[in-house]
Amino acid sequence: MRRVAILGSTGSIGRQALDVIRARPDELKVVALAGNRNLGLLEKQIREFRPVMFCSADKPDDDWGSAFLSAEEIASHPEVDLVIVATAGQGGLSPTLAAARAGKTVALANKEVLVMAGEIIVREASTHQARILPVDSEHSAVWQCLHGEPDKARRLFLTASGGPFYRYQESQLSRITPEQALQHPVWKMGRKVTIDSATLMNKGLEVIEAHWLFSFPFDSIEILMHPQSVVHSMVEFADGSLKAQLSPPDMRLPIQYALSYPHRWSNPELPRLDWAKTGSLTFEPVDYDRFPCLRLALDAGRAGGTHPAVLCAADEVAVQLFLSHKIGFTAIAGIIRDTLDQHRSIPDPSLQQVLAASAWARDHAKRLALGDDQQPGQPDDQGSRNSR
Amino acid sequence: MRRVAILGSTGSIGRQALDVIRARPDELKVVALAGNRNLGLLEKQIREFRPVMFCSADKPDDDWGSAFLSAEEIASHPEVDLVIVATAGQGGLSPTLAAARAGKTVALANKEVLVMAGEIIVREASTHQARILPVDSEHSAVWQCLHGEPDKARRLFLTASGGPFYRYQESQLSRITPEQALQHPVWKMGRKVTIDSATLMNKGLEVIEAHWLFSFPFDSIEILMHPQSVVHSMVEFADGSLKAQLSPPDMRLPIQYALSYPHRWSNPELPRLDWAKTGSLTFEPVDYDRFPCLRLALDAGRAGGTHPAVLCAADEVAVQLFLSHKIGFTAIAGIIRDTLDQHRSIPDPSLQQVLAASAWARDHAKRLALGDDQQPGQPDDQGSRNSR
Repeated sequence: MRRVAILGSTGSIGRQALDVIRARPDELKVVALAGNRNLGLLEKQIREFRPVMFCSADKPDDDWGSAFLSAEEIASHPEVDLVIVATAGQGGLSPTLAAARAGKTVALANKEVLVMAGEIIVREASTHQARILPVDSEHSAVWQCLHGEPDKARRLFLTASGGPFYRYQESQLSRITPEQALQHPVWKMGRKVTIDSATLMNKGLEVIEAHWLFSFPFDSIEILMHPQSVVHSMVEFADGSLKAQLSPPDMRLPIQYALSYPHRWSNPELPRLDWAKTGSLTFEPVDYDRFPCLRLALDAGRAGGTHPAVLCAADEVAVQLFLSHKIGFTAIAGIIRDTLDQHRSIPDPSLQQVLAASAWARDHAKRLALGDDQQPGQPDDQGSRNSR
Repeated sequence: MRRVAILGSTGSIGRQALDVIRARPDELKVVALAGNRNLGLLEKQIREFRPVMFCSADKPDDDWGSAFLSAEEIASHPEVDLVIVATAGQGGLSPTLAAARAGKTVALANKEVLVMAGEIIVREASTHQARILPVDSEHSAVWQCLHGEPDKARRLFLTASGGPFYRYQESQLSRITPEQALQHPVWKMGRKVTIDSATLMNKGLEVIEAHWLFSFPFDSIEILMHPQSVVHSMVEFADGSLKAQLSPPDMRLPIQYALSYPHRWSNPELPRLDWAKTGSLTFEPVDYDRFPCLRLALDAGRAGGTHPAVLCAADEVAVQLFLSHKIGFTAIAGIIRDTLDQHRSIPDPSLQQVLAASAWARDHAKRLALGDDQQPGQPDDQGSRNSR
C-alpha cells in the first residue's frame, strides 16, 4: 500500500490522478490533498478520500485543526511515500524540494519545477536518494524506453503535436484569439499549458525538463513534429536502434504509470490503440522560425543559471496578458525575449535567487507589455546573491 | 572477450555476423566456423579469422586434422561461449539442441529450429540454463521492447513488410515468376526466406518462433502490415502502453545486438534513421485470404505436435519446386495444406519424431506436387514413437 499526497488535487492532472487512485484501493491510499483556490472541489475530494492532511491556498472557514499543513510539510511528512506534484507554475518548486530532501518518490507533473530549478532539485534528490518520476507523456515515454538499458542513450526525440496553429502562416499567427488558442486538437489541458502548446513554448520547457530528468545534453535532445500524438517520444541508442512509446493520447496513462511503476496495471478506463483506425504516423523536423518561443526556451536552457526561471516567469505573464486580450499571440515571444535580454543571470543559483529572478522577470515583463519601460532593479542588486 | 562459433558462416547472416565481429576485435573472437557447401568462401573465412575448429557439409580435400568437428561438437564445445545459428532449414536443429544442453548462449537466426522443435529447445535451454537470443529483426525488436518490464506483456505486434506482392490481386498472384519473387522491396536475404516473405509464410513462422521465444499464446500475437519496415515490431503492456523498436532495415543491427547484449555498440557501418527522409509510417491489419500460407502456419503452430515440422518441410519442398519453375506461386499453399491435412500429428514429439515427420512431409509434398498420389507411410508407422 503506497501512501500518496497530491499537491494540486483540484487541477486537471490532480483530478485524473484521483481517478486512477479510486480504481486501485488495494495499492494506493490518499493521505494528503492540497488544492489551490477551488475550495468547494477540495472539500468534496476530502470527503471522498478522507486524507489525514490537507492544505489550500485559501484557508477554509471551518476549523480543520492540525490536519491543515503547508504544502512543504505535506511533501516531507513521514506518513507520505509518494508525492504527486500537480501544481502549476512555480508553486511546485518549494514543496518538490522539501520532498526531495525527505527522500520521497516524486511523481512530477509540474514542469516549471525542473525548468526553473533543475540543478538544485536533481542535486538534492541524488543526495537524499529521492526519485523523480516523470508524469508528462513525453518524459514518461522516454523513461519507459530507457528501462533495462544499461548504457547511456545517444539521442532523445521529443514528439510535438504542434498544437492548433502549426500549419499557420506568420500573418495568420498574429490574428489568433485566446478562444482559438484554447482549442487544442489533441490534449485537454489547463489554460496556461494549452497556450504554451500553441506557441511551442511547452515543447521548449519539456526539452529543459528532459535535460534534467535524464541528464541529457541539450544537443542530444531533438524535437519531431508528430501531429497524431500517438508516439509520445523516442530514444535512440548507440547502435542506431530506437525505442518509441505509443498509446492513444490520455494523461491517465502516464499518471498511472508513475504510480504503478515498475509494474503496469490493467485499467479498463484507459483507451487501447486500434491499428485499424490509427492511420499513418508522420514525423518531421520542427520549424523554429514561426515559433520563436521554442528557440528562446532552448537558449535559456543552454544558458542555465537563472535564465530558465526568467523564461518561465516572463512566459507566465505574457500568456496571462494574451488570455486577457491585452497583447496579441505573436507578442508573447517578444516580451519573453526582451525580458531575457535584460536579465543578468546568476550561475548556480540558490532557490532564493531563482525565486528572486522570477519575481524580477514577472515585474519586468509586465512593465514591458504595458509600455512602462523603466527598468526595475535586477534581483542580484537586491542582495539576494548572499542569501543562499 | 566472448568466444563465438558461427554455424552457417558462408550464408547471408553468417557473413554479416563476421562483418560485425571484424569491427570488435577486443570483445569478440571467432573460435569456430561451420559452412555448408561453399568451401571456397569458408576457407577464405578460416584464413582471416583463424578459428580453432570448423566444419562443412562437404569435407575439404586438405587434411584439416582434428580441428574438423561436427556442428554438434562445435556447438557444445567448452571453448565456445556463444553460438550463432545461421544455418538454413532444419540444419540448425540438432546443433542448437546440443548448444542448449551445453548451457551456451545461442544467437538464433534459423527460425525453423524453434518452429519445428520449439518445445524441446525451450525445455532443454531452461533445464541447462542456456539462453536463446533472437536475431530475426522482429524478434529482436520484441526482445528489446520487453527489457526492464517485470510483468508479462499483453500483446505482441509483429510487423510485416508484405513483400513485393502485398497489393496484388488473386489473379495476378498466380502469374508471379521466381525472378519477380526474388526481388524483395526492403530486405536482401537468402532465396528461401525471400520466397517465404512473398507468400507471408515467413511471417507465420515468425509467429510460431515468437510463441516459443517469449512464451506468448498465439491469440496474443498479431500481425500488422507495415510496408516501410521501420518499426520492426511492438509490444503492448497491461496498461495499454506500447513500445516499438525502430531502425532502418539492416540485419547487421539485430545480429550485433545479440552479440553486444545487454550493451549496445556504436558502429559507423550501421545506418541511422533520418526523420527528414522517413515519411509516414503506416500500419494495417493483415489480409489472410490472399496469403493462405500465413493461416496454414498459424494453424500448424496452434495444433503443435509434429504439425509445424511438417509445415516447414512441405514449405521447403514447395518453394524449391516454385524456384525451379515446376509449380506456380499460388500452388505453394496447396501443397503445404494437402500435406498437413494428411499428416497424423504426434503430440509432444521427440527430436527423432520431429525429423521423421519432416522426412515424411518432404517425401509426401514432392509426390503431391509431381502428381504421384500414392501415400508414403506416416512416420509413427515406422516405430519412431518409441525412439525418444
